[in-house]
Amino acid sequence: MLTTNPFDDDKLREECGVFGIWNADAAASFVALGLHALQHRGQEAAGISSMDAAGFHSHRAAGHVAGTFDKDEVIRALPGRTAIGHVRYSTTGSSAMRNVQPLFAELADGGFAVAHNGNISNAMKLRRTLNRRGSIFQSTSDTEVIIHLVATSHHTQMLDRIVDALNQVEGAYSLLMLTEAGLIACRDPLGIRPLVMGRIGDSVIFASETVALDVIGAHYERDVGPGEMVLVNGDGVRSFRPFVSASPRPCIFEHVYFSRPDSVVDGTSVYESRKNIGAELARESPVEADIVVPVPDSGVPAAIGFSQASGIPFELGIIRSHYVGRTFIQPSQEVRHLGVKLKHNANSALIRGKKVVLIDDSIVRGTTSVKIVQMMRDAGAAEVHMRIASPPTRHSCFYGVDTPERAKLLAAQMDVAAMAKYINADSLAFISIDGLYRALGDSRNPAVPQRCDACFTGDYPTRLTDLTDKEMAQSALRVVASR
Amino acid sequence: MLTTNPFDDDKLREECGVFGIWNADAAASFVALGLHALQHRGQEAAGISSMDAAGFHSHRAAGHVAGTFDKDEVIRALPGRTAIGHVRYSTTGSSAMRNVQPLFAELADGGFAVAHNGNISNAMKLRRTLNRRGSIFQSTSDTEVIIHLVATSHHTQMLDRIVDALNQVEGAYSLLMLTEAGLIACRDPLGIRPLVMGRIGDSVIFASETVALDVIGAHYERDVGPGEMVLVNGDGVRSFRPFVSASPRPCIFEHVYFSRPDSVVDGTSVYESRKNIGAELARESPVEADIVVPVPDSGVPAAIGFSQASGIPFELGIIRSHYVGRTFIQPSQEVRHLGVKLKHNANSALIRGKKVVLIDDSIVRGTTSVKIVQMMRDAGAAEVHMRIASPPTRHSCFYGVDTPERAKLLAAQMDVAAMAKYINADSLAFISIDGLYRALGDSRNPAVPQRCDACFTGDYPTRLTDLTDKEMAQSALRVVASR
Amino acid sequence: MLTTNPFDDDKLREECGVFGIWNADAAASFVALGLHALQHRGQEAAGISSMDAAGFHSHRAAGHVAGTFDKDEVIRALPGRTAIGHVRYSTTGSSAMRNVQPLFAELADGGFAVAHNGNISNAMKLRRTLNRRGSIFQSTSDTEVIIHLVATSHHTQMLDRIVDALNQVEGAYSLLMLTEAGLIACRDPLGIRPLVMGRIGDSVIFASETVALDVIGAHYERDVGPGEMVLVNGDGVRSFRPFVSASPRPCIFEHVYFSRPDSVVDGTSVYESRKNIGAELARESPVEADIVVPVPDSGVPAAIGFSQASGIPFELGIIRSHYVGRTFIQPSQEVRHLGVKLKHNANSALIRGKKVVLIDDSIVRGTTSVKIVQMMRDAGAAEVHMRIASPPTRHSCFYGVDTPERAKLLAAQMDVAAMAKYINADSLAFISIDGLYRALGDSRNPAVPQRCDACFTGDYPTRLTDLTDKEMAQSALRVVASR
Amino acid sequence: MLTTNPFDDDKLREECGVFGIWNADAAASFVALGLHALQHRGQEAAGISSMDAAGFHSHRAAGHVAGTFDKDEVIRALPGRTAIGHVRYSTTGSSAMRNVQPLFAELADGGFAVAHNGNISNAMKLRRTLNRRGSIFQSTSDTEVIIHLVATSHHTQMLDRIVDALNQVEGAYSLLMLTEAGLIACRDPLGIRPLVMGRIGDSVIFASETVALDVIGAHYERDVGPGEMVLVNGDGVRSFRPFVSASPRPCIFEHVYFSRPDSVVDGTSVYESRKNIGAELARESPVEADIVVPVPDSGVPAAIGFSQASGIPFELGIIRSHYVGRTFIQPSQEVRHLGVKLKHNANSALIRGKKVVLIDDSIVRGTTSVKIVQMMRDAGAAEVHMRIASPPTRHSCFYGVDTPERAKLLAAQMDVAAMAKYINADSLAFISIDGLYRALGDSRNPAVPQRCDACFTGDYPTRLTDLTDKEMAQSALRVVASR
Repeated sequence: MLTTNPFDDDKLREECGVFGIWNADAAASFVALGLHALQHRGQEAAGISSMDAAGFHSHRAAGHVAGTFDKDEVIRALPGRTAIGHVRYSTTGSSAMRNVQPLFAELADGGFAVAHNGNISNAMKLRRTLNRRGSIFQSTSDTEVIIHLVATSHHTQMLDRIVDALNQVEGAYSLLMLTEAGLIACRDPLGIRPLVMGRIGDSVIFASETVALDVIGAHYERDVGPGEMVLVNGDGVRSFRPFVSASPRPCIFEHVYFSRPDSVVDGTSVYESRKNIGAELARESPVEADIVVPVPDSGVPAAIGFSQASGIPFELGIIRSHYVGRTFIQPSQEVRHLGVKLKHNANSALIRGKKVVLIDDSIVRGTTSVKIVQMMRDAGAAEVHMRIASPPTRHSCFYGVDTPERAKLLAAQMDVAAMAKYINADSLAFISIDGLYRALGDSRNPAVPQRCDACFTGDYPTRLTDLTDKEMAQSALRVVASR
Repeated sequence: MLTTNPFDDDKLREECGVFGIWNADAAASFVALGLHALQHRGQEAAGISSMDAAGFHSHRAAGHVAGTFDKDEVIRALPGRTAIGHVRYSTTGSSAMRNVQPLFAELADGGFAVAHNGNISNAMKLRRTLNRRGSIFQSTSDTEVIIHLVATSHHTQMLDRIVDALNQVEGAYSLLMLTEAGLIACRDPLGIRPLVMGRIGDSVIFASETVALDVIGAHYERDVGPGEMVLVNGDGVRSFRPFVSASPRPCIFEHVYFSRPDSVVDGTSVYESRKNIGAELARESPVEADIVVPVPDSGVPAAIGFSQASGIPFELGIIRSHYVGRTFIQPSQEVRHLGVKLKHNANSALIRGKKVVLIDDSIVRGTTSVKIVQMMRDAGAAEVHMRIASPPTRHSCFYGVDTPERAKLLAAQMDVAAMAKYINADSLAFISIDGLYRALGDSRNPAVPQRCDACFTGDYPTRLTDLTDKEMAQSALRVVASR
Repeated sequence: MLTTNPFDDDKLREECGVFGIWNADAAASFVALGLHALQHRGQEAAGISSMDAAGFHSHRAAGHVAGTFDKDEVIRALPGRTAIGHVRYSTTGSSAMRNVQPLFAELADGGFAVAHNGNISNAMKLRRTLNRRGSIFQSTSDTEVIIHLVATSHHTQMLDRIVDALNQVEGAYSLLMLTEAGLIACRDPLGIRPLVMGRIGDSVIFASETVALDVIGAHYERDVGPGEMVLVNGDGVRSFRPFVSASPRPCIFEHVYFSRPDSVVDGTSVYESRKNIGAELARESPVEADIVVPVPDSGVPAAIGFSQASGIPFELGIIRSHYVGRTFIQPSQEVRHLGVKLKHNANSALIRGKKVVLIDDSIVRGTTSVKIVQMMRDAGAAEVHMRIASPPTRHSCFYGVDTPERAKLLAAQMDVAAMAKYINADSLAFISIDGLYRALGDSRNPAVPQRCDACFTGDYPTRLTDLTDKEMAQSALRVVASR
Repeated sequence: MLTTNPFDDDKLREECGVFGIWNADAAASFVALGLHALQHRGQEAAGISSMDAAGFHSHRAAGHVAGTFDKDEVIRALPGRTAIGHVRYSTTGSSAMRNVQPLFAELADGGFAVAHNGNISNAMKLRRTLNRRGSIFQSTSDTEVIIHLVATSHHTQMLDRIVDALNQVEGAYSLLMLTEAGLIACRDPLGIRPLVMGRIGDSVIFASETVALDVIGAHYERDVGPGEMVLVNGDGVRSFRPFVSASPRPCIFEHVYFSRPDSVVDGTSVYESRKNIGAELARESPVEADIVVPVPDSGVPAAIGFSQASGIPFELGIIRSHYVGRTFIQPSQEVRHLGVKLKHNANSALIRGKKVVLIDDSIVRGTTSVKIVQMMRDAGAAEVHMRIASPPTRHSCFYGVDTPERAKLLAAQMDVAAMAKYINADSLAFISIDGLYRALGDSRNPAVPQRCDACFTGDYPTRLTDLTDKEMAQSALRVVASR
């Protein structure tokens, strides 16, 4: 009956986070801590696979990392000095457990566990082929395709089998694989999804974000490069570049929303990036106002940047309850309109009579923007100006990010003026795509963009094999392959 | 294994919140929403009792309001147009369920449900007397004493029985009582714990804080006055003043920490109060620094006030994970030292090389202050100056607030200079008790303080009958009765 | 969806069994074993209370003894060298847990736990009086009345308080009470419900049936006499006779159905009694037939007796599944007609073409008799003759046995000829009331029967205070007090 | 803590039962009823798979059929007019759920669900081969081998793929398979495990025993023959004989213990068979005694047969509690000695001073025989003579029956005289192997026995590929292939 209606329901959602460690006592307990720090990348389910002399051990569960992987008996059942883990945001349903990662299979040459951040855009086609040959799938996960490609590869060495498998695959993947040959990390040739490498003592760590290194006191060493495969085992750390090289296209939205502000992505502090975006936004679209109010919590850094650049005071005009989980996702559009105050409440004593600049990171469906502007007006705001710290989101992502179908993206349906009217703001402005690159210290190359910005521009860096022509047309997409 | 170590573990804790509504369709669903908004006042357990023509209905459960009272079947089992509810922070243990409120008893003249915020300071003495007369207690709750006093009263009318009972009681109480005579709200003569009254349409509402009115769209009407009893039934709303009058002594800590910043307490915005305290603190104890960093989240308003008064920029130097519940309380002192980064992480890219002013609302045991200063130093801070938005907490509370025994209060063990050294800060300052009253727009009357500030001053406004002489001495307390 | 439809659904049901032990290591584990042996006397819920130097410990749970009291952690949480327990067949519902025994109260002079087999026939009247005086009831159990009478007694010694309480009580009770004065066993002056005493080593045991002594290897010492109170403590075993004496009226139905065949009740083997009843039935109502078939399992001993007296072979014509719990009770009359074969199946290969004598212990509603005769006919029986090992059940029991309201008792609605037609048997006969006494070695005294046989005769041995005049009339009952 | 120690712990255990139905409304609810009737064949876990236009639906759960498959929501989630089910007695462990049947796989030409009674004796060898080719196994079940053989078969039609798969398989199997081609039943060429076919209205049913037909009111049509494959679909029922023919060798132990007495196996009533065995035993090994006492419940029919043949009265000398599940299996040898009275209690009043003939169906380890003889002596028996309704069990079964390793079989360790002494009986006799065949109406052909009696004789009818030579030697086995 009660519904949480967090403003951040109306966001794009990262679908996964991965974490792995080699050569640590109670490796699984480190993975649990790391996954906890990556919880914002996937709250539906989590899993850990560890390996010791006796073989592989796995535990997977719906829900948050805390609640399962903070239990002694769970961690004790995951012995070994190496382990990988995964957090997942994804579909629900009775069969969902089979899709929770790490996926595991007992191959002829030993166990194989894999955790995947990304999405394989020709998975359906590959699956049909494998199925006809007699491979039996246990999940509906695109990741399982990789396992069967490895299992049926004619190569004899595990690394070769993996390369053989990945050469047949299109799309985005940051992979951690646990095999008897060692712990293997691999990032797709375009480096669409992030993957970093760190160390603490003699342990080697891979993670989706640096914040997962911080939480266990490890230091950041370097990014796993686009197209790089790293093998860690008793012989040390070895790097391979087995794929055809390409211009990298890392996801720009990691800076806008996905990554935690205390992470460092592509060598830049996310907090700084967001403050810069806020400052750039103040310059591009200034407004006369009394207070700058962030939409909590993702809008806070950009709001501080906007406040400092504009000189308008930063104030908490919206109070967020800490007793509503960010992940409580309502099934239907209808109930998303109810109960918004459960999660956020206007600080009416502050707002009354003021001209307010609201700062949010993005607008997806627009549903919460409508409610939050109305909340400001109900609290007595004299004027409400909305500033958005990203360009209009007009296209779906096919690389491991949960986006609504295109028809539900507000910016795919109307221009900025109509959007301002729709959300009932006195003014509305988005940062430009060039302004966004500028805030990140770049200048966008329209021929071959330095990042994947397809959600804003429709410029997709890979083929999208599984999409039908009709879906292609609806998505208004255009493949701008990296070279 | 994993432990959350939120900085706000080291806080005083409000023990309860109450919410009641008269004359509403599906009254229990409003109570559920109201309790959800009061969740910060008690996260251990929650309960709702409703009344309809068929009688009384109750549901009580350990844990948060969400998870139990957001289920249709639970709400449907609580029919009726009037209902009261309670959230509780309290002791655990096998028998705890019997202590979860509202408590209910079938008296000779009908059902009686009660929800209580506060603490009865002569409960043990009254209990012994009742027990000897043949009354059988089902709980260890001080609140059950009130029920037995009502049950055994020689008066014939319910209101008279309640007044008779409360006249034997000492201490703090904001009570909601559901009886066949109607919904009754009552606040102790000193008004130690808060209780407000609101309306929406034809419904009358009572709640611990105004934020619970906001969440259901109700408007604040007035406070229930100290010593006032309000009866709501089919004949309307009637107010009684059945007790000997006294100078009010509302709890000052509601402004410092307990209440939500978007609540209005004693006619003042809590957010404004906290900003004022921060500004006053900047004036009383200025410091030269590069950035003002709040200890999230309770330190944020005072930090904004400090920043605006001092001109030092406000920055998020500590990032809080949203995936750790505020209420996850570790059993032992030891584990509280572990895993602090699970909940908070330094924004190292920002902190490095800076002179930092840390703003927190209070220091209780000091355990987290030690860790947070260290976290700043580990992140490369050049200097760390701690400023606290309340005076040193030196005394236990006996009015429904969970305080550590006095020996564990850092400020009861050492002076401010020693504390600064203990937490390893370059400087440490607390706001003065007079500065605190000033920030709230008052000037403290040391003979009869206008508020209960016993936790800072040891000036207790009531007798403490159940305390032994030895406990009195250890508490270094002094009763300064209101007149 | 699936329904169990055991033939023994259509039985009177003993409502309780009790077991207590004094002076045994891990007393609770013996109580668990004893209750398990008494499980047939109550399958809805079970509870154990133990006492050690630290005080009283209780655990109560819905369901069977196994499943709760076979868990180490449960038994370990019930420390002490003395303990009592209770199994219960009773009403369901949300508040049912409060009614599960042993009931416990913390009285002014210490803890008081009580387990009760029987029913207090003036409980409602006593409850109203106590309630008006300020006693607050926590359950709807008649047993709680005893606790409040003890709590409010003006006597100072525990034994005197208990006698004072029981002197106000009418009806049937076999009680075990755990107090700081010791373990107290007490049986009502008429001895309606059974209670035996046994020993093993230095331990003293009380139980509803001797089979509970067997299970722990204890030997039977004697019955607790009607009107006797036995106190066991460090000073040994003492017996009291505090009540006005009366002619005993032990329940005759213990021999017919309630007690296990391997128990010895009133000095007679129940198995022998039932065989004797079967033999007497063969003499009173002979029939020419091919096979004697028991309705399993309660009809087996009487069928063996019938077979041996008549010379007709005993055969298993109905096979019982062991995977349907006897206690699975369907809520509505309708579903009781479905699925009878889940629990019992005709042995068709045997039955086909045979003249069958079916032996059952009693007919209550007649619902299963209808089905079982039909089952025999479906299996090809040439003739079906039903013989019942008790007189027609025509009256409700008010002494702790669950009987349907009188209007649902088949024998209260029609005579034997009509019943035969109703159940579609070729012939039907019940043993006579005099034949039943004869089989038990007695000759019935109609003025003051030696046993309580009210369910057959309507001769109730006590006043029935709580019954309204209308209910009295409907019950067609007549109080034949013992003298 | 409490332990059930049913006498029937010391039995061979059938490992599975299967049930399937074609063309019935709510097919799954019939399967649930059928599995319930087959519960004695496997109590560890149960599962049902159904098929409708939307595809396949499965639910599997640990524990009994009741408790899971008597829930409306479970049955509603299994829609369709055809369904198969399985009950299983097997190993426990964390991964056990993956082994619970029906197993299901999505093959290239549609879903494939299989329920298997029996055991494949070359499963390990086949598995290694498949694994090397890239097949990924999800379970440790021998049944999964069949699925992968079907998936990788080069044939194009489903029936051909299944035949191709089964031709590679050795051992015992009664299979039900649900495919888009229809419902397929198949029994291995020797017909080791049973499988019958029945009808009700337009529905076709397959089940392990006829009792499962009875429970839903269906009639028995015929056995599925050894080596027969039956396909049921919209085109009707078709029978195939795709395997090389062989002399049938149905399991003789179905008559001794596995099947329910109300089932008809190989055209003979099991109840009659067991009575005949008892009568034959009375003739082969007569004894002078006062009473014949069955070891409940499996010994009852043989005891009735023994009593009728010998003229010694049949009496219930051992009373069985109905509140201990037959399936509660203790993990260690030690605890099996404790608590025997929990489940069975001597009827001491009957036994005292009597010469007793105890009838049991088999002796496996002998542990309970020791206890039961002792129980008779403790109850005062003058003499105790044990008669066993099967020959000594000297060899392990490899065809889907759980037997202890050979070293634990009492009859593999000592001769009958030593066994009598071991169990402390005044005399002990087993029926001879020829007597057993005689009771079943046959005369044993020692060259090629008409049944599989390997557990008594060591004459195994198939190769045992997965057994090592060492295991072969220890098992003292000899393959007497059917021709």
